[in-house]
Amino acid sequence: MKIVFFGKNAANFHPGFQELLESPAEIALVSDALDQPGEAELLAQADVVIGVRYDAGMPALSARLFQLPAAGYDGVDFERLSSTCTVCNAFGHEVAITEYVMASLLARHVPLADADARLRQGDWHYGSGGANGLRTELGNQSIGIIGHGHIGRTVAARALAFGMAVHVANRSPLENPDYAGVYGLEALPEMLARVDIVLNTLPLSPDTKGLIGKDAFAAMQPHATFINVGRGAVVDEAALFDALSSQRIGSAIIDTWYVYPSADTPNPMPGNFPFETLSNVTLTPHMSGWTEGTVRRRTQTCADNVNRLAAGKPLLNVVGQGLNPQ
Amino acid sequence: MKIVFFGKNAANFHPGFQELLESPAEIALVSDALDQPGEAELLAQADVVIGVRYDAGMPALSARLFQLPAAGYDGVDFERLSSTCTVCNAFGHEVAITEYVMASLLARHVPLADADARLRQGDWHYGSGGANGLRTELGNQSIGIIGHGHIGRTVAARALAFGMAVHVANRSPLENPDYAGVYGLEALPEMLARVDIVLNTLPLSPDTKGLIGKDAFAAMQPHATFINVGRGAVVDEAALFDALSSQRIGSAIIDTWYVYPSADTPNPMPGNFPFETLSNVTLTPHMSGWTEGTVRRRTQTCADNVNRLAAGKPLLNVVGQGLNPQ
Repeated sequence: MKIVFFGKNAANFHPGFQELLESPAEIALVSDALDQPGEAELLAQADVVIGVRYDAGMPALSARLFQLPAAGYDGVDFERLSSTCTVCNAFGHEVAITEYVMASLLARHVPLADADARLRQGDWHYGSGGANGLRTELGNQSIGIIGHGHIGRTVAARALAFGMAVHVANRSPLENPDYAGVYGLEALPEMLARVDIVLNTLPLSPDTKGLIGKDAFAAMQPHATFINVGRGAVVDEAALFDALSSQRIGSAIIDTWYVYPSADTPNPMPGNFPFETLSNVTLTPHMSGWTEGTVRRRTQTCADNVNRLAAGKPLLNVVGQGLNPQ
Repeated sequence: MKIVFFGKNAANFHPGFQELLESPAEIALVSDALDQPGEAELLAQADVVIGVRYDAGMPALSARLFQLPAAGYDGVDFERLSSTCTVCNAFGHEVAITEYVMASLLARHVPLADADARLRQGDWHYGSGGANGLRTELGNQSIGIIGHGHIGRTVAARALAFGMAVHVANRSPLENPDYAGVYGLEALPEMLARVDIVLNTLPLSPDTKGLIGKDAFAAMQPHATFINVGRGAVVDEAALFDALSSQRIGSAIIDTWYVYPSADTPNPMPGNFPFETLSNVTLTPHMSGWTEGTVRRRTQTCADNVNRLAAGKPLLNVVGQGLNPQ
């Protein structure tokens, strides 16, 4: 079995990978640019490609498995992949993303850094019994989660443990007696009007592109906090910028963006609008799922699928087949 | 029924209190110093005193109920209170303290402020796929909770929801199949050696004073994080300072202290040792339980006990009777 890790992102999942395989394999790493001698051939001839991107200008693959060490497969052009190639993704990031979400939310109620800086100067501002530093509680808030996949379900469970009222909007109908409300996506505005916090977890697809737009922000409460850990383009960028800059909503925590680093522009601002000038938004660089635990769990998923392919067993996390009949 | 709110801390629980009473009452607020005309008499003649402190130099009380709007009653001198006076406390702070604990712990894994400051400069340091900004996960850590009262149980439930391994040491034996380990207090060093995070929730009593001392810090792992939300004096101050300044343990988050503000010294440093010079400790001003939710829940507890006293029903949260037979 010839296995190629394609690109810098995939290379993160190489350490410890070989030890998880049940049969011999030739493993190679190739660069994103494929500009070193022999790299294009290695990629073209691999049985398994582990990578996050496949598009125009890349060599035709003979791989039977294109395994993403990631959840989002919007970087893979299925039209260019052979119909004999199965595309699979990987999760294992839901725990990391939930820690990011809960950390972000709790930080708004517990002003640790300010309390520490003050007390080092003898200022007991936030102390018990004082009227000035009385905090609010996250447990007293409601959250509306858009999407009920791995991320949505995991955040919902942690939010419930904190006593929060949890509302969920999802394409497929769902029922859960622990939730304060469940909604179809067509009833999204109804949910948005009811909650203190709105969390988008939806991936990008033709159906979800721009799903959260001007109407959605108009439906939210004026104090609402909006969080995006799904994909940037699920949210209309102009509508998001306008809602924040006009203070139509209270604040936002944005982890998934509209502009990403590239070889030509390694340090771009993350939006086409100047989000970096706004004080009511926390900007983070698509970091929410990126932990040692995520890498460990995804490395295991990739190895599991290689072992299944070698043993002729059904693959896990299949997202589709290539669409090129050749 | 004559009810007196005694001092600045108690006054926080006055708003909305009268509306919770089921029978008529005369309610007064008096200052900590009792230096305004008539204040000492109001206090002495009250049927119910709501306050956190009763000690030398204060007038004898005829109260039947001394109700603390707080959990810790180490500020009340039972020897000076009449044996006809019942002392009750109040909880409702466990949710707030748990949010403080989880916020403090999550902040160590999710560097939001740094990520935001960097991305505003076009620096994607923590982004997915990069090798530099890979985070760790709280869910991968173990916590050893000392004390299994309101606070210990509530933190344990939230920590379990995050996937943490939860160990508990408690005076009374306990069993819980969800816990990774349970220990008597005599086996405390055994627990301390096993966990990444140590949380003290114990209140101050003759039994707990200095319970966590040099031996306890010696038993902890070198990377351990120690958190104190119980009472300062449960932890030997010199041993804590030494463990941190010598880096015998990794770090600490300290909310309960050795020196508190007083009328003479309103802005003291919180220790007798210079904790404020250490970089491996987060110092907070006894703020962990201080939220609007705590005030609301404790105001309800105080009113409930006044209603019970008026109706001749048993009081809730009784911690003892005065010890003065006169």
